[in-house]
Amino acid sequence: MNTNILYYHSVCPKSRFVRILMQELDFEAEIKIEEYWKFRDNFLKINPAGDLPILVTKNEKTNKPQIITGIFAIFEYVIHHRQNNFLIDQNQYNMAEVRRLIEWCTVKMYNEVTMPLINEKIICYYRKDNSPNSQIIRNAKHNLNFHLEYLSMLLSENDWVAGNKISAADLFFASHISTLDYLGEISWPNYQTLKHWYMLIKSRPSFRNILNEKITGFAPSNSYELLDF
Amino acid sequence: MNTNILYYHSVCPKSRFVRILMQELDFEAEIKIEEYWKFRDNFLKINPAGDLPILVTKNEKTNKPQIITGIFAIFEYVIHHRQNNFLIDQNQYNMAEVRRLIEWCTVKMYNEVTMPLINEKIICYYRKDNSPNSQIIRNAKHNLNFHLEYLSMLLSENDWVAGNKISAADLFFASHISTLDYLGEISWPNYQTLKHWYMLIKSRPSFRNILNEKITGFAPSNSYELLDF
Repeated sequence: MNTNILYYHSVCPKSRFVRILMQELDFEAEIKIEEYWKFRDNFLKINPAGDLPILVTKNEKTNKPQIITGIFAIFEYVIHHRQNNFLIDQNQYNMAEVRRLIEWCTVKMYNEVTMPLINEKIICYYRKDNSPNSQIIRNAKHNLNFHLEYLSMLLSENDWVAGNKISAADLFFASHISTLDYLGEISWPNYQTLKHWYMLIKSRPSFRNILNEKITGFAPSNSYELLDF
Repeated sequence: MNTNILYYHSVCPKSRFVRILMQELDFEAEIKIEEYWKFRDNFLKINPAGDLPILVTKNEKTNKPQIITGIFAIFEYVIHHRQNNFLIDQNQYNMAEVRRLIEWCTVKMYNEVTMPLINEKIICYYRKDNSPNSQIIRNAKHNLNFHLEYLSMLLSENDWVAGNKISAADLFFASHISTLDYLGEISWPNYQTLKHWYMLIKSRPSFRNILNEKITGFAPSNSYELLDF
């Protein structure tokens, strides 16, 4: 039996990232789907922040379940258990750039783009308690351009977002982009450099589960599952 | 000459944290004041996110200046250079809790409370380009209660926010609280447990510079500098 459990939902790009990271690093975990917008009591007890992902692992000393929440805590925990792998650069300055970009995406892109679009387009529909706010959607779409341009700029300087090697930062941005792409939010013809980069990431076996999965009630955009789009 | 430079401003709680962390860990850096709201071209070149703090260090291999931005990148870099110290627990689960709380404070408390209050109360005044938005201030004050209650709850379960030992998470929350306290935003009589904890942190020598520093144009609240308040 697997001792690691990943609380996960496919609408959550941070959940997607951890699932992909774990697959890339052969870190096994059982996937448990959590409809996090329902704020189950037991879920809030595990994570008062009320969001995903959550990793439950077995404490090596006490053998009891150990809860790890927060994308930075999970990221550092997973890479701590997988030293000397291709995603984790031993160069501390490269790692600083990877962490900077994960923070950029978590603090800026998620708040300004991904979370509002997910909330207004999907969570509103699931909750049925209010209708989408079109002003919020417009702002998020506007902000999206800024972030895609920033990513394109990074990719015009290097092969990958954090330098000349693929890193966890690429997987993190690609996870956010995959959610937005599912919703048909990315005008790919405007972002050729980004498109080429995303095609490369999409082709990785670690991405397959994500691309095959459906978000209940929503059909993916036409090119979502295509590796060559 | 010092090889490390910390771009800093006392209105920025994340800057305060890094300064305190460095002092606690004997990690020396020259302090350079950056009025980050002016978005100087050269500052944006160093950090396109346009915020503080920024650590410039000397690359050990190339001897060239190396820029580290983002609170997670700087935190991990500094603790990487100070292994086996009292703030950095070798227990990975305790460290996961420290990282979770730093993320909570960075993503939630900063966005919902500290940043809007700083922007509306101080940055608006400095920029002189628009008047404070009272609705934003009201929302931030409302959210502040929620975060102070969450901290109080953590402190009712343990001596320190991340367990029974002081950690970087205590210093991080205290840095945010110190900015809010300067502005007189904390009703201490409502938060006795928190007050006791903050008194202990305030008494640490690493906090002295922060408490003696003035934010131009703003007088600190009456009890701001008092260790016993």
